[in-house]
Amino acid sequence: MSSAFDYLDKNRERHLAELKELLAIPSVSTDSSRAKDVKRAADWVSKRLKKVGCKKVKVVPTERHPIVYGEWLGAPGKPTILVYGHYDVQPADPLELWDTPPFEPTLRDDRIYARGASDDKGQVITHVNALEAHLQNGGCPINVKFLIEGEEEIGSPNLESFIRENKSALACDGVVVSDTAMFSKDLPSICYGLRGLAYLEVHVKGTDRDLHSGSFGGAVVNPANALVQMLSALKDARGRISVPGFYDNVKRLTVSERRAFAALPHSDRKFRRAIGAPELDGESSYSTLERIWARPSLDINGIWGGFTGEGAKTVIPAEASAKISMRLVPHQTPNEIAKKVAGYLKKIAPKSVKLTVRNLHGGETWLTPTDHPTLLAASTAMKRAFGKTPVFVREGGSIPVVATFEKLLRVPTVLMGFGLNDDNLHAPNEKMELSNFYRGMQASAYLMEELGKADDGATQVGQRVRGKRARS
Amino acid sequence: MSSAFDYLDKNRERHLAELKELLAIPSVSTDSSRAKDVKRAADWVSKRLKKVGCKKVKVVPTERHPIVYGEWLGAPGKPTILVYGHYDVQPADPLELWDTPPFEPTLRDDRIYARGASDDKGQVITHVNALEAHLQNGGCPINVKFLIEGEEEIGSPNLESFIRENKSALACDGVVVSDTAMFSKDLPSICYGLRGLAYLEVHVKGTDRDLHSGSFGGAVVNPANALVQMLSALKDARGRISVPGFYDNVKRLTVSERRAFAALPHSDRKFRRAIGAPELDGESSYSTLERIWARPSLDINGIWGGFTGEGAKTVIPAEASAKISMRLVPHQTPNEIAKKVAGYLKKIAPKSVKLTVRNLHGGETWLTPTDHPTLLAASTAMKRAFGKTPVFVREGGSIPVVATFEKLLRVPTVLMGFGLNDDNLHAPNEKMELSNFYRGMQASAYLMEELGKADDGATQVGQRVRGKRARS
Repeated sequence: MSSAFDYLDKNRERHLAELKELLAIPSVSTDSSRAKDVKRAADWVSKRLKKVGCKKVKVVPTERHPIVYGEWLGAPGKPTILVYGHYDVQPADPLELWDTPPFEPTLRDDRIYARGASDDKGQVITHVNALEAHLQNGGCPINVKFLIEGEEEIGSPNLESFIRENKSALACDGVVVSDTAMFSKDLPSICYGLRGLAYLEVHVKGTDRDLHSGSFGGAVVNPANALVQMLSALKDARGRISVPGFYDNVKRLTVSERRAFAALPHSDRKFRRAIGAPELDGESSYSTLERIWARPSLDINGIWGGFTGEGAKTVIPAEASAKISMRLVPHQTPNEIAKKVAGYLKKIAPKSVKLTVRNLHGGETWLTPTDHPTLLAASTAMKRAFGKTPVFVREGGSIPVVATFEKLLRVPTVLMGFGLNDDNLHAPNEKMELSNFYRGMQASAYLMEELGKADDGATQVGQRVRGKRARS
Repeated sequence: MSSAFDYLDKNRERHLAELKELLAIPSVSTDSSRAKDVKRAADWVSKRLKKVGCKKVKVVPTERHPIVYGEWLGAPGKPTILVYGHYDVQPADPLELWDTPPFEPTLRDDRIYARGASDDKGQVITHVNALEAHLQNGGCPINVKFLIEGEEEIGSPNLESFIRENKSALACDGVVVSDTAMFSKDLPSICYGLRGLAYLEVHVKGTDRDLHSGSFGGAVVNPANALVQMLSALKDARGRISVPGFYDNVKRLTVSERRAFAALPHSDRKFRRAIGAPELDGESSYSTLERIWARPSLDINGIWGGFTGEGAKTVIPAEASAKISMRLVPHQTPNEIAKKVAGYLKKIAPKSVKLTVRNLHGGETWLTPTDHPTLLAASTAMKRAFGKTPVFVREGGSIPVVATFEKLLRVPTVLMGFGLNDDNLHAPNEKMELSNFYRGMQASAYLMEELGKADDGATQVGQRVRGKRARS
């Protein structure tokens, strides 16, 4: 099998040149004037899948940007993985903060700088190249399907329906996603848990119109004052969320999880400095990693009302609003939490205001067992590629598609990211480490090898993969 | 003396036609493209003062819009009043909500509709016409000075220095201002108290940049959450302001004041309906009029931070801000209160944020004794003009120039307003009741007569006016 890995080493320059081609396409999904570029990127991916040897390659139109699908099913009886990723990118502004133009991929200090380098073009393409390496060297030990969308950066509005309508075509034993970061540059990691999300917009209306604060101040409710009272009542002084029943379904951290988190090389001081925070803050009795990975949170994402210009305007605003969101942990659900928070806000709202709460958005939590054979195979593959046993970590954010895969395809997902936390995702000077690009291809090739290993083992892994469902 | 009043009756049409001329000039002080119109209005007022018989009439340039001054000092030994008013107006937008164009004065239902009709052109001009009536009929019983500025709607930035530099020229026994509303259409009133103002801008900074609420939520301070916690701590559940020492210098309402307020024909139901409030709200144990006129208040005038666009953005904002202001009552002072509130905010701010509090603006409280001879003369004059004894009221708002007059000229101010609460000041379809315009002229002429009455009395009033200083 080693020839596949030799192949990857020998073809580094070409693979990098190809990545540059893809990165040069400004496939900004949110910018409708870039729709043709997005389509161009989809076509590039589709052409590349065909060239690698995929069959049934298609560019499936959606209401906005197409989904690229391709498959190689030349290993009957062996497990099948579905590689999910995205070829669309975030906008590049503010352009003036880029050291080199975002869509002119540039090599510097063993990194490739371009919008999409790490998120997600550079990561998703590693799996395509890994499949190529196997196919050029005797065939791939497992079956591989690719689902590469062009709407991830706008919330994947057409992905779930596509998966739902193509369940049998997408059937597999596990989903592999490389769209996250490693724990640190020297420490590969596999993510086994994601927080969910409940996102509300709160609107408080007082009087019919803005009032003069002199003529009315003290005798009428001020909806901005009412809003801050209500929002401040959502949390207590110890950082706990005060909404009744909020923690009812929270899965408690086990002793071994807390121990595992504590063993990770995390430094609060470095973490704090990296974001320029005067001090860290959060729910008492929990460490930073526990707070981010395994405890729910509540944040005001936006707040507005009244006069916000220069100077002093003495107005009592007629209304005030806020966007608030809760990060959820298993086994909380977005609907349950949205309902509880909205209900509590209604309960504590003064009678003198009209309250409206809109449920804007939700995302399920996700947690998969770390002893699942697919995760163990991924762990071995990462160790072989990076020379170090990966740590199992969680993410504080949400990747809604992971829960969707689990719900619709009933298979586990492996989040094996080749990015780094300082890759500047969604920011100027996005980059990917070239070493991670190369090692990522190797890790993917090793994963295919691990999952396809020895007849008995392979079947066993395949069956176990098929038979066992991740719990969330 | 009755001929002066006959004169006013006979000249109604001409006085109205002249008012229309002034109202047709769009002297919007805040709009720099209207600077020439503002100057035109100043020239119109100056010409009118000259025509009436004033001497030393001048249009005094300031850094922005000129001040018009004029005087008639033909009653030596008699008291002198200084009439203060303004010839500038608020902007007229939104234009589409006006039934007739704001600068084409229109008569309808015994009202004159135009921007500035009530605020303040229609009101200030009554005193000019009253002086004319006396001068055309044997002379004015007192001396009259006019100070009519063009920057009231932009906060009178150049007025205080003008008064300070012209203290001796402006020396007088009392200031008369008609720039407020009567208690109701059928009930003339004289205002004897104004609230003061302390206005702060609060800025809370958390981290160096916006953070992803998934990757960081729960482990770092959210400055928007910190801000709402801090702002909500400023008031308790009973509507009282919780800042330590806030009420230390509050002059308590006397029993007779509470009785007088309670006797006024005020209806909470009508008040509530007029502003479209679901319920009234405020400090417990106080009536609406007490809350507005004689109790301090605290309002959020504006609040902003984070994502305020359409949809859901999962951001922890790096900063959040608010504008808050306190209405003050005697003997609170703006500096004292600004210091106490800022100090309390600093005390309760979490260590994990950087707090900045800026003192944007302040205004002194004002309260004058209702038994002051100048106020009593004004009361008699209003009674003679409106056929009803006026009630003594307070205002919840601030008119900083009143405190300035008191501070620099050391004389009382009479706030005798001829406006109504439904005059649509600062709003579309501003109007003035014609009956109030005519009665206002009479009231002003009566006031001159009252203050100048019978040698002994006049001197006595003059001396008492001069000798007694209003207490605040």
